[in-house]
Amino acid sequence: MSELSFVLNKAHDVSFKNQAPDPFTSDHDVRVHITSTGICGSDVHYWKQGRIGDFVVEKPMILGHESSGVVVEVAKNVKSLKPGDRVAVEPGRVCRICDYCRAGHYNLCPHMEFAATPPYDGTLRTTYVTTEDFCTKLPDNISLDEAAIFEPLSVAIHCWQRAQLTFGKRVLVFGCGPVGLLLMAVAKAYGAIEIVAADVSATRTQFAEKYIGAKAYVCPKKNESESVAAYAEKCRTAIKYEHGYFEFTADATGVDTCIHTAVLLLKPGGTFIQAGNGKPVVDFPINHLVNNELSVIGSFRYSAGCYEQALKLVSTGKVPLKPLISHTFAFKEAEEAYKTTADPSSGAIKVIIHGTDY
Amino acid sequence: MSELSFVLNKAHDVSFKNQAPDPFTSDHDVRVHITSTGICGSDVHYWKQGRIGDFVVEKPMILGHESSGVVVEVAKNVKSLKPGDRVAVEPGRVCRICDYCRAGHYNLCPHMEFAATPPYDGTLRTTYVTTEDFCTKLPDNISLDEAAIFEPLSVAIHCWQRAQLTFGKRVLVFGCGPVGLLLMAVAKAYGAIEIVAADVSATRTQFAEKYIGAKAYVCPKKNESESVAAYAEKCRTAIKYEHGYFEFTADATGVDTCIHTAVLLLKPGGTFIQAGNGKPVVDFPINHLVNNELSVIGSFRYSAGCYEQALKLVSTGKVPLKPLISHTFAFKEAEEAYKTTADPSSGAIKVIIHGTDY
Amino acid sequence: MSELSFVLNKAHDVSFKNQAPDPFTSDHDVRVHITSTGICGSDVHYWKQGRIGDFVVEKPMILGHESSGVVVEVAKNVKSLKPGDRVAVEPGRVCRICDYCRAGHYNLCPHMEFAATPPYDGTLRTTYVTTEDFCTKLPDNISLDEAAIFEPLSVAIHCWQRAQLTFGKRVLVFGCGPVGLLLMAVAKAYGAIEIVAADVSATRTQFAEKYIGAKAYVCPKKNESESVAAYAEKCRTAIKYEHGYFEFTADATGVDTCIHTAVLLLKPGGTFIQAGNGKPVVDFPINHLVNNELSVIGSFRYSAGCYEQALKLVSTGKVPLKPLISHTFAFKEAEEAYKTTADPSSGAIKVIIHGTDY
Amino acid sequence: MSELSFVLNKAHDVSFKNQAPDPFTSDHDVRVHITSTGICGSDVHYWKQGRIGDFVVEKPMILGHESSGVVVEVAKNVKSLKPGDRVAVEPGRVCRICDYCRAGHYNLCPHMEFAATPPYDGTLRTTYVTTEDFCTKLPDNISLDEAAIFEPLSVAIHCWQRAQLTFGKRVLVFGCGPVGLLLMAVAKAYGAIEIVAADVSATRTQFAEKYIGAKAYVCPKKNESESVAAYAEKCRTAIKYEHGYFEFTADATGVDTCIHTAVLLLKPGGTFIQAGNGKPVVDFPINHLVNNELSVIGSFRYSAGCYEQALKLVSTGKVPLKPLISHTFAFKEAEEAYKTTADPSSGAIKVIIHGTDY
Repeated sequence: MSELSFVLNKAHDVSFKNQAPDPFTSDHDVRVHITSTGICGSDVHYWKQGRIGDFVVEKPMILGHESSGVVVEVAKNVKSLKPGDRVAVEPGRVCRICDYCRAGHYNLCPHMEFAATPPYDGTLRTTYVTTEDFCTKLPDNISLDEAAIFEPLSVAIHCWQRAQLTFGKRVLVFGCGPVGLLLMAVAKAYGAIEIVAADVSATRTQFAEKYIGAKAYVCPKKNESESVAAYAEKCRTAIKYEHGYFEFTADATGVDTCIHTAVLLLKPGGTFIQAGNGKPVVDFPINHLVNNELSVIGSFRYSAGCYEQALKLVSTGKVPLKPLISHTFAFKEAEEAYKTTADPSSGAIKVIIHGTDY
Repeated sequence: MSELSFVLNKAHDVSFKNQAPDPFTSDHDVRVHITSTGICGSDVHYWKQGRIGDFVVEKPMILGHESSGVVVEVAKNVKSLKPGDRVAVEPGRVCRICDYCRAGHYNLCPHMEFAATPPYDGTLRTTYVTTEDFCTKLPDNISLDEAAIFEPLSVAIHCWQRAQLTFGKRVLVFGCGPVGLLLMAVAKAYGAIEIVAADVSATRTQFAEKYIGAKAYVCPKKNESESVAAYAEKCRTAIKYEHGYFEFTADATGVDTCIHTAVLLLKPGGTFIQAGNGKPVVDFPINHLVNNELSVIGSFRYSAGCYEQALKLVSTGKVPLKPLISHTFAFKEAEEAYKTTADPSSGAIKVIIHGTDY
Repeated sequence: MSELSFVLNKAHDVSFKNQAPDPFTSDHDVRVHITSTGICGSDVHYWKQGRIGDFVVEKPMILGHESSGVVVEVAKNVKSLKPGDRVAVEPGRVCRICDYCRAGHYNLCPHMEFAATPPYDGTLRTTYVTTEDFCTKLPDNISLDEAAIFEPLSVAIHCWQRAQLTFGKRVLVFGCGPVGLLLMAVAKAYGAIEIVAADVSATRTQFAEKYIGAKAYVCPKKNESESVAAYAEKCRTAIKYEHGYFEFTADATGVDTCIHTAVLLLKPGGTFIQAGNGKPVVDFPINHLVNNELSVIGSFRYSAGCYEQALKLVSTGKVPLKPLISHTFAFKEAEEAYKTTADPSSGAIKVIIHGTDY
Repeated sequence: MSELSFVLNKAHDVSFKNQAPDPFTSDHDVRVHITSTGICGSDVHYWKQGRIGDFVVEKPMILGHESSGVVVEVAKNVKSLKPGDRVAVEPGRVCRICDYCRAGHYNLCPHMEFAATPPYDGTLRTTYVTTEDFCTKLPDNISLDEAAIFEPLSVAIHCWQRAQLTFGKRVLVFGCGPVGLLLMAVAKAYGAIEIVAADVSATRTQFAEKYIGAKAYVCPKKNESESVAAYAEKCRTAIKYEHGYFEFTADATGVDTCIHTAVLLLKPGGTFIQAGNGKPVVDFPINHLVNNELSVIGSFRYSAGCYEQALKLVSTGKVPLKPLISHTFAFKEAEEAYKTTADPSSGAIKVIIHGTDY
């Protein structure tokens, strides 16, 4: 049996391919018929640039890593799943024997084979093979389209777990794209008593207001002559005027001015979390960090337990995912789905590509 | 009775003054005859510039905050001390009622009146009044000169406590001045199994080698045309060649290239600690922070329990302080002491000014 | 001006007294006109027995420690409060200079003068003097009667903070009195996804079901011939049958069989929290603790930040307090209030005594 | 090729057997020629009773789980080891896919196949097959006999890591057998500034004094008529007289009076760690736990990173293992080795059985 996949050959060059299903390589493997795949900013970046930083697409690579589907085959030692089970799929395979894997930090595994990060193929294909523990079985009240969003939701969960967010804090998030919005939703579920959403786009901050009850703050334009530090100081004053300082701030933009401002807006002893990539080197207020005894935490993907948290957050209604699904496309329309995601005028939040027949 | 003090009038203008002893303001107050005061980099900075960042010397201010002495008078509710007790003095008075004080983080108290930080007078005077709990009683095996160094030692202790350093880690410290050396000594006492000392001065790194068994690394010159990031990448490769990556790195220089390099030299999941001020805004590798899930921790002064740790570290011989005392001066030679500290050719590590008669 | 107080002379002997108002002893003191005081199980215990363990009422003592009121006078350095402010009152005065106070654990202060713990007078009087930081200013949406319950609520908050409860856990609480109910309410607010309430009284567990949506479990009778361990094993099987094991369990009864069962019902790696006193020495399953790597945590009163959390939990509607107020009495009916609290047939949950005129 | 093993058939019935070597079951497997195996109290218990609690020897089982040896064969994906490498062997195989394994707590894996815990065979055989990550490669300065003791050393390490022991604490350990001694040695390496060793045997406490500089305390006899609580109160007073209270106490005896006393001897806020099994249910001072806000922590075996810590502690000389090796026996003398371990008059601390030829 042959299966279909959606392949990035090089920047701006995608195509559908037929290929053999992947074989099982472990007695704990399961084969999942992929039914829903979300598009991530990083997918768009590969599609447009053929690379992200040091990760370069040097040979055709199947795209996609935010996926869910239905189990269609299980290897002989699988006990937790059976064909027919609906699952969210945690992308990537890890070595399980390095110090990071052994200690539960498999996101730092140096041997990680992450879906759709070159040279590893992604999940936009008929079936994807992974181990049973990288599948999260869904209850009836969660749809497969929602389950595809467990991936960015797990990114947000891991951020706040790294930052040790607890009940009763005031939180600021820069960026109202999917990860920013999910950071706000998880912060709210974890007990944040005030959430301020900041973005350059009023449309986006309004969405955050409606989605999760965030207070919106539309960032002013930065003058070209202004330094990052001076601009950030200006934003600090402006946001502070309305809301005061924050115990936790997060950035989901990767933009230097946002990062700088988010650090300045912390209360003494506060924590800033950086959720994704952007400008590799930024102007950073290091004296401010020292004098206010701040913590700046990097968070990379997600690790043990994050998908399980995602399941709990969504199944209990604490984090709503349906409002984030702005568009859905059939598998054959995958390129159109990418174009829609990349088009600021589309109003896209999260775009889902449905699966092939099986 | 009148007492003598050493006063900074404005930049480069110091003098001795007579003044009345401070009165007691609390039933837990004690009066300490100051016998030894170390000079800190910040003292020199005030002396030279009349300011540090936003802290400006606008009226004459008594200098000094690293002090020890002998209790000469106690208020009526003091139970832990009596006249004649030898003590290390924790500088500054705190409000005890703000949320930070109540939670044990009095270093972040917004009402902190820190010795020799404008507008608050310092400890270079005949007697200094503080509360009993800001005095640490010394056993016989610790001299008053050593006890003056409890202050920068507490800075180093607080850094590693903030960073949660535990046994068995590999540690890199940029800067071989007193705070850098004390960071190394405390790291060793806390169980670091390898300590690399980095500095631009071979004399200084050699001192670190001798003092604490650190492995020395003399930083190369940075070409003017080189970016901070490019230079740091070069250093990373060079230091890595010999020693590999580190679970913990610290900076005690405030120099942008050191900070940048120290972050790059962390293992995934590692922690960088910034120990003091320097360049206010630095080029910071934020993507590297995210992709390696690093933590960057600011540490400001010290808080509850640090002086007690200092006592334990010194009294058990884990941290030797005597080797750090390079010069001692009589009270009347205070200006000479400052000049010596500020003179790179003096070989000064820690300069101590002795007290007035009492 | 004379004020009225409600005094326990010795076991079962109470009376009203007139006495002078307490003077201010600190420049941060405030005088609060007490308007509402809840009765705690410990108050009833003193009233009935004249002692709790080593704490013996040896001279007349004013009762009450769960109080709120209105500020009527402030000392000269008070900045956070002014006459007319409505406040919850944290009982007790602490030394602020011992190691525990300095580190934020003032509940462990050896010099604590806790209201209505012999020999210290309580809050059932016209006015009570405390420091401004032991008052929590109330917003309009919290009544003074509710604010009196901040005290047991803070007990529950401190328990879960000690236990480090985070989102997504399954929790069992033994005991459906005020502290047990508040443990359930706080657990829910902190993100527990399932809460099981266990008690010997079906009336009480039904209250827990209605109050916070807990699943109720009515404990079976213990045969006299049964050992605590055997009985607990039986309960384990019974509760497990319905609900499985728990990441966190808590006891608010002090009964040996409850404690034993609660430990047995933990998942490997789980945490048990003991919220109050009862039988001093209990049969404890220590091998089970080891083989399942459990943690058993004692929690005593509350410490820095708990009242602030209480304010956030109540003002945001996360923890409802009104349903807990089963009876209110005028000050002059204080003895009747105690009798009602002590009478199992009264259906009392939380009984509030209102204040005197001022 | 056939290999030899030392088998427990049933209580007091041991024999040598020939059997086929175990096959590889994973591409990360290695075969280790076992050269040194320590005898643990649990081994002796199985030998004498045929069971420990619910674990019953129902069919012949190879004994031994504290082992080291030389790698003689590696599976195809093994990169970290090669034949000839000397290694400490972490006993047991884990599932790697349950929530506990994924989170780094593989000691709690419900599918753990632990060496010499029925029904799983142990390591007292010619070769033992495990995965590469359960082997710790030895440097030249550690002998194979010492490496066998990494197992109980890891038990001690895990205890203090669970208890979060940091520099500067005062520690009490009940029991001066191998685990008790190793708890003391690790506590010292982790920075304990005072270690008190308690045991009923003066010979054993003297060994602790000599071995690690502990202060010795020989427990008094308990009168039969005395309750555990009363006896413990007596011990508390006696030990306190000399040394005061402790931030951390540990029990390595499993005896109820020791556990009780160790809890009573904690400072407010202190932590007790239970290191092994003994009496299943003990009289426990639960009110004392609450009123002093204590933590009681169970520790089970060891988890990710403990063997690596053992390597660091031993290779740096912080924990000496040679003094613990009181007897060594040839493989053919295995039964004699067990008898020696079980004989209190032998003075045995750690008894090592050497391996067969290979």
